[in-house]
Amino acid sequence: MTVKIAKSWHFNKRPKNMIESDTFVLKELPIPPLKDGEFLFKTIYLSLDATNRVWLSDWDIYMEPVHIGDPMRGFVFGQIIESRNPNFPVGRYAAGLHTWSDHIITNGDSFDLFPVLDGLDLAETFAILSVAGPTAHVGLHEIGGLKENETVVVSGAAGAVGTIVGQIAKIRGCRVIGIAGSDEKCAMIVNEFGYDAAINYKTEDVTEALGKLCPDGIDLCFENVGGDILDASLTHMKDFGRVVICGLISSYNSSEPVPGPYMFRNLIMRRLTVRGFVILDHADIMPDVLKELASWVANGKLKMPTHIVDGLEAAPNALNLLYTGGNTGKLLVKI
Amino acid sequence: MTVKIAKSWHFNKRPKNMIESDTFVLKELPIPPLKDGEFLFKTIYLSLDATNRVWLSDWDIYMEPVHIGDPMRGFVFGQIIESRNPNFPVGRYAAGLHTWSDHIITNGDSFDLFPVLDGLDLAETFAILSVAGPTAHVGLHEIGGLKENETVVVSGAAGAVGTIVGQIAKIRGCRVIGIAGSDEKCAMIVNEFGYDAAINYKTEDVTEALGKLCPDGIDLCFENVGGDILDASLTHMKDFGRVVICGLISSYNSSEPVPGPYMFRNLIMRRLTVRGFVILDHADIMPDVLKELASWVANGKLKMPTHIVDGLEAAPNALNLLYTGGNTGKLLVKI
Repeated sequence: MTVKIAKSWHFNKRPKNMIESDTFVLKELPIPPLKDGEFLFKTIYLSLDATNRVWLSDWDIYMEPVHIGDPMRGFVFGQIIESRNPNFPVGRYAAGLHTWSDHIITNGDSFDLFPVLDGLDLAETFAILSVAGPTAHVGLHEIGGLKENETVVVSGAAGAVGTIVGQIAKIRGCRVIGIAGSDEKCAMIVNEFGYDAAINYKTEDVTEALGKLCPDGIDLCFENVGGDILDASLTHMKDFGRVVICGLISSYNSSEPVPGPYMFRNLIMRRLTVRGFVILDHADIMPDVLKELASWVANGKLKMPTHIVDGLEAAPNALNLLYTGGNTGKLLVKI
Repeated sequence: MTVKIAKSWHFNKRPKNMIESDTFVLKELPIPPLKDGEFLFKTIYLSLDATNRVWLSDWDIYMEPVHIGDPMRGFVFGQIIESRNPNFPVGRYAAGLHTWSDHIITNGDSFDLFPVLDGLDLAETFAILSVAGPTAHVGLHEIGGLKENETVVVSGAAGAVGTIVGQIAKIRGCRVIGIAGSDEKCAMIVNEFGYDAAINYKTEDVTEALGKLCPDGIDLCFENVGGDILDASLTHMKDFGRVVICGLISSYNSSEPVPGPYMFRNLIMRRLTVRGFVILDHADIMPDVLKELASWVANGKLKMPTHIVDGLEAAPNALNLLYTGGNTGKLLVKI
């Protein structure tokens, strides 16, 4: 074994709000020899996702949380550098749900081999196909029941999931309005990702702006943020509209109870269907979803901006970017 | 024409919270002669429903609101006493959505003839078949997708809709827990309407009590109340559970914005589907719904307590009973 030591971040102390300097500690541990069925994985990119913060909370969440003392969990992309598992041969790329580590020994349970797509760099392929693309696809179709020619509103529109949601909704012939946190982000999603219009929630009254942009109401709201932003969309939903709750990032850093939307009564007034979802539940349809996403990537219909931070050491601070609007597109750590 | 004058309540001033003495004014107006296609309807019972208060708000609601100066809208049951409409012959009973009036002239647009069921008094028939029964049936089946052997939690369980929801869920073989506002109501829904257990929200910690009564979680929450009560149920929903938002009565009297549920995040954590509905949208399936409800009534599987207030004059004050928990079962005004 050429690599002797693996570095990984461990959960040290529950943060009250943002990630703090003592939330994680970096540990160096010796790498044991491979057993039959295992392989050694060298991490190339670590994906940072809004839901990472949820795993650190003391809420009753959708899966086992990360406990104090555990290595921090994350989606990783990398290369197999030693292997005693014939399904994961040396040299192939793979992606999986594992830990914030530069080297991983695993039997491959939560890993899949990863395609190399012509003309696309590995970061962008991973950014689209690992979490954000499937989340956008399943959220729009399986959960939201997207139909042609609908009016779709997306919050967190310049984020990883948001940029893909907009592009898929355009592929489906919809009118798409994005909500984002700066003029630069708004310009980007309109000029580069095909959004029909964008609202800067930091400088505009979102409720008023949505009223003007969606005079006939919203068919489908794809919600990544929650709070005031969700209230603005709820105000303008069409009768029998659908609201897909993908994320509620505005509340993930709060140690106080956060009220739900003040326009909750519109579930009745507009007869809405509001559904939350988690992409990990939809493994059964993932082959078809990935096939369609890859075809769109191949013919240039789907692209993804990446925001890449350097070095495993930078991961904890970088996670905070998701909650301050500091990233545009998919946030990755290059190991 | 034997009756010369009709009395009816008109909306006079928007209430801030509860209905006040000047919210409505009683007017006496001469009854014009019948035209071809019209009939004269003598109101016997006026139904008071939680949603009546919504019609008086300045919210953007699910139908045309009642405007200041308009006669107050309501569901009515009565008898045809003169007719120039062959579909509504003299002597027959009918029910419809019209006004808080003792006599009504109409072409029958929003009226249907009403069955007389053997062994059941007219008040109970009207109470079950006019609004509460269809609301409970459609909410459980069409909106909530009720399945056998599920755990169902019902708030406002001793109200008109709640008593029917519990009985239908029992007919479907479910376990049903009700939340109500007094020990008497709790005893009634368990002893008379088949609820498996009841929680008095005024004396018990509802979240804690639901945790004990539903250790494996709630499949379907039928919500009539909102606020803290809904939060308690959201806390204990099963993964992929469904929440039917039938009413949010705890917020209808508020002139201040009311926050949505604090456990809104559980839409994601438990991957919930939350749907609001209004019974008026479901006219297409009403014949089948009414047929099934009537068959249950006929074979004694479905009954309804009625709380009857005397005289059209009493209607405005009686409406407040719905928001103070002053009624048990269906609140009717006998004209």
